[in-house]
Amino acid sequence: MEGTIRCAANYVPLSPISFLERSAVVYRDRLSIVYGDHVNFTWRQTRDRCVKLASSLASGFRISPGEVVAVLAPNIPEMYELHFAVPMAGAVLCTLNIRHDSKMISTLLKHSAAKLVFVDYQFIDVAKGAIKIMSKSTATVPQLVLIPDSLEHLPRSQSGIIEYEALLTMGNLDFEIRTPGDECDPITLNYTSGTSSPKGVVYSHRGAYLNSLAAVLLNEMQSMPVYLWTVPMFHCNGWCLSWAVAAQGGTNVCLRTVTAKGIFKCISRHQVTHMSGAPTVLNMIINVPATERLPLPAKVSVMTGGAPPPSQVVFSMEQLGFNVFHSYGLTETYGPGTVCTWKPEWNSLPSETRAKIKSRQGVNHLGIEEVDVKDPVTLKSVPWDAKTIGEVMFRGNTVMNGYLHDEKATQEAFKGGWFRSGDLGVRHSDGYIELKDRSKDIIISGGENISTIEVESVLFRHPAVLEAAVVGRPDDHWGETPCAFVNLKEGYELTGDELIAYCRKNFPHYMAPRTVVFEELPKTSTGKTQKFLLREKTKAMGSLPARGKSKL
Amino acid sequence: MEGTIRCAANYVPLSPISFLERSAVVYRDRLSIVYGDHVNFTWRQTRDRCVKLASSLASGFRISPGEVVAVLAPNIPEMYELHFAVPMAGAVLCTLNIRHDSKMISTLLKHSAAKLVFVDYQFIDVAKGAIKIMSKSTATVPQLVLIPDSLEHLPRSQSGIIEYEALLTMGNLDFEIRTPGDECDPITLNYTSGTSSPKGVVYSHRGAYLNSLAAVLLNEMQSMPVYLWTVPMFHCNGWCLSWAVAAQGGTNVCLRTVTAKGIFKCISRHQVTHMSGAPTVLNMIINVPATERLPLPAKVSVMTGGAPPPSQVVFSMEQLGFNVFHSYGLTETYGPGTVCTWKPEWNSLPSETRAKIKSRQGVNHLGIEEVDVKDPVTLKSVPWDAKTIGEVMFRGNTVMNGYLHDEKATQEAFKGGWFRSGDLGVRHSDGYIELKDRSKDIIISGGENISTIEVESVLFRHPAVLEAAVVGRPDDHWGETPCAFVNLKEGYELTGDELIAYCRKNFPHYMAPRTVVFEELPKTSTGKTQKFLLREKTKAMGSLPARGKSKL
Repeated sequence: MEGTIRCAANYVPLSPISFLERSAVVYRDRLSIVYGDHVNFTWRQTRDRCVKLASSLASGFRISPGEVVAVLAPNIPEMYELHFAVPMAGAVLCTLNIRHDSKMISTLLKHSAAKLVFVDYQFIDVAKGAIKIMSKSTATVPQLVLIPDSLEHLPRSQSGIIEYEALLTMGNLDFEIRTPGDECDPITLNYTSGTSSPKGVVYSHRGAYLNSLAAVLLNEMQSMPVYLWTVPMFHCNGWCLSWAVAAQGGTNVCLRTVTAKGIFKCISRHQVTHMSGAPTVLNMIINVPATERLPLPAKVSVMTGGAPPPSQVVFSMEQLGFNVFHSYGLTETYGPGTVCTWKPEWNSLPSETRAKIKSRQGVNHLGIEEVDVKDPVTLKSVPWDAKTIGEVMFRGNTVMNGYLHDEKATQEAFKGGWFRSGDLGVRHSDGYIELKDRSKDIIISGGENISTIEVESVLFRHPAVLEAAVVGRPDDHWGETPCAFVNLKEGYELTGDELIAYCRKNFPHYMAPRTVVFEELPKTSTGKTQKFLLREKTKAMGSLPARGKSKL
Repeated sequence: MEGTIRCAANYVPLSPISFLERSAVVYRDRLSIVYGDHVNFTWRQTRDRCVKLASSLASGFRISPGEVVAVLAPNIPEMYELHFAVPMAGAVLCTLNIRHDSKMISTLLKHSAAKLVFVDYQFIDVAKGAIKIMSKSTATVPQLVLIPDSLEHLPRSQSGIIEYEALLTMGNLDFEIRTPGDECDPITLNYTSGTSSPKGVVYSHRGAYLNSLAAVLLNEMQSMPVYLWTVPMFHCNGWCLSWAVAAQGGTNVCLRTVTAKGIFKCISRHQVTHMSGAPTVLNMIINVPATERLPLPAKVSVMTGGAPPPSQVVFSMEQLGFNVFHSYGLTETYGPGTVCTWKPEWNSLPSETRAKIKSRQGVNHLGIEEVDVKDPVTLKSVPWDAKTIGEVMFRGNTVMNGYLHDEKATQEAFKGGWFRSGDLGVRHSDGYIELKDRSKDIIISGGENISTIEVESVLFRHPAVLEAAVVGRPDDHWGETPCAFVNLKEGYELTGDELIAYCRKNFPHYMAPRTVVFEELPKTSTGKTQKFLLREKTKAMGSLPARGKSKL
């Protein structure tokens, strides 16, 4: 409109860096980070530490805008600081999964062209191994920066490697923060986990800003929350809560190793209000020995995701005083993209029905403009009949910029103007989405689709079952038959036949597992079962003997 | 970064329209709007009504993207719907102040080049008068659309004028919503009030989106709040809560006329959680007769602004069970831009100190990147010493696009890359801002700056004083002396000399009013005292007789 202009006064590129700058004033003397018994910082201190670190990166290490700085660390204070300090230097933070081995780390460092890697002392050998592998094939390897244990003050045995605090000491508090020229500039690089060929998912300042606010709202976080770090920050930047907690001037309670005992201790000591975690974390909590359980000071809100939480798990968590809500998303959607928004009228339903509804993926949060279940070919929306299966698709500002160095895969993922999740689901009459399976996980047996999630949820309800995962087993006659991998609770005994009989009581015979394997399940660092490893096992098993088939 | 792309899947222009689209699914069957005893809608209905209305505007009335549609109405459901329907047609909503007369309305309609004006039945004569004035000088006058009273179902006496519901009936639910091509495109036009030459402040889709989320957070609004409309929607689009309530799937409780009785009735009946209002509204509440007061079902959060709330008013409100928090901003900052964020450690302070702190303007909310108090010439920040006065300046995405048809004024307002508020203030040692005066309101007496806000706050603490405003009175010797306009509470008596004596006990003689006038204060529709009218009165008074001066 005539008379208006765009200038520094009324247009500032969106970036989570603003959250830290603001909290350093608004929440100046409030605790930003606590860790163990002795480590704690205020928001003013955190901001100053991040500025100094950014200055060191920009001046001392000559990191240029757009270059990649990697980190290999658990949920420690330095990991949190890097989420601001690296972007403040104009660089892109690449968070590496601490479960990876040297080989995988070397692959990712090479792919990302990281200039620098911050490494927690626990993982220094893995990092050194990665550098060694790299140096065989390339002249330019990234420099390592050691993060010693701020709790233990271990003797410095890593001579020759520069240390984290040294960078801070070198830093200049007057450094002018490098804010993004374009808010769509990259802020972080998250490699997808769980599959054999990881992809580098690029997040933008704009997306991170908007998803942080969406995360605040979907977690119903009022100002100054106390957030316990039980979801890895290296996964989707902690579902973007790394930045969201700064937006609300909250306190980050860091935790190196996630144990039920540690969780209860932190909640009790710091009056934790919010936490997140995959169903495995919830499982850990509900199976805690009574001696390690402490009473909750108040309701603790727990966002779960990564896999649908079994009804039984939700139910047990609520009995302990946690308020569980279920979200769903992918690395490509900055973590959670939908949430099973709770309707007050559901409160009066029987607890089992409530838990069942809670395990639905729900509806889009504010950052995602649209989520839909569509026919992947025609892009037509499926009817809201809770039956017709389609692919879950997303559209919005909190969908990734794309896959680094792989425009073909990016184009493929965005074909038709929607991000295709690869997940299959239905839509209930109220618009809520329920996942049925990953497109690659669904079992097709004798032409029938079997949702492995449905089979797993029945297995989970069995009192002896701690964990379960179902995959297809190749079959000469049926194509595939369901095979269950089950981990029993301690002290319980059960035979495969007993479990199969139990399943057959709960749904049609063709859906019940034909094979049961009792063993611990292979997991990603975020608690997702690695089904591709289980599928390799069933492939090796081959077809069931023909005799069994007539029984179906 | 190489491999990434920008497309419909990962970039959507920010617009509050998205809030409505999402709430129509997520909060589908929840109440969006209630009004009186019989009018209520769900979010699904509100969305459908807005789409139909938008379709009528676009097709029936051929409103083109970027054209202006005006509205002259109080806080009724139709006013709320227009906040979405007009932008959904790609048009710009111009909300007119219902206190304006035909002449002013004609000026604004002409300046904005509005094509259409929606008019509430109460103001139809004002609107007709404006059209009559316009038709004398121009051939193209805007068309009127009548909004009859949905509560009373008055007989249709306005024959010849098309009615609101007729537009809906004409509308097509399949209409494709016109989302903005650029998120910085204009969404609304708000004329500033209170001064003699109104300026047309242009808001953008982006600013409205971001300010709505900031409003949700600064109001500590969880999902599904119940919001009572006691701040006019025609003022800064209801401080952007028109859109914010949709973002959280809340219920809008509409109120044609703001009375204490009506407020208590609505709170009690609809379990109101949040409301807002100028200090005049708070004054109305605390002075309610006991017979009209109803117990609050729960704590009600009240955002106040427009003028600093006197300590006594905050104190009385809290005794009634309201939680008052103070925000500050201008039409140019989409309403509130700062908020006096409460620190838990302040809870233990004496109530008077608490109320005093509460009257500070505080710190920037999330939508504003930076607020500062600066020397208007050098742009240097003032020290945080609570003493040095400077001009309050803003920078961020929730600062206006500019003034319509007045690029010179826009450039002036944004000189140096900051929006200059024209308000004078100091910064406390914790970074909180406290306003001392409007640059044009401050009194300079014998070379001393006198903050009229400080004088007023002392007057307000006097038990007999209902309202007070202080302006300078021209003086031959001192330049100016303070003159107090005071409105006493019913049943109280007080002389000017008594009040002056009281003031002299509370601060230096030169700050105490030299003149006291007892009368009702002239106000804008948003409850701001119109000091320019009082200044006209003191100008007419002339200088005080010389005798009085020696006493100083």
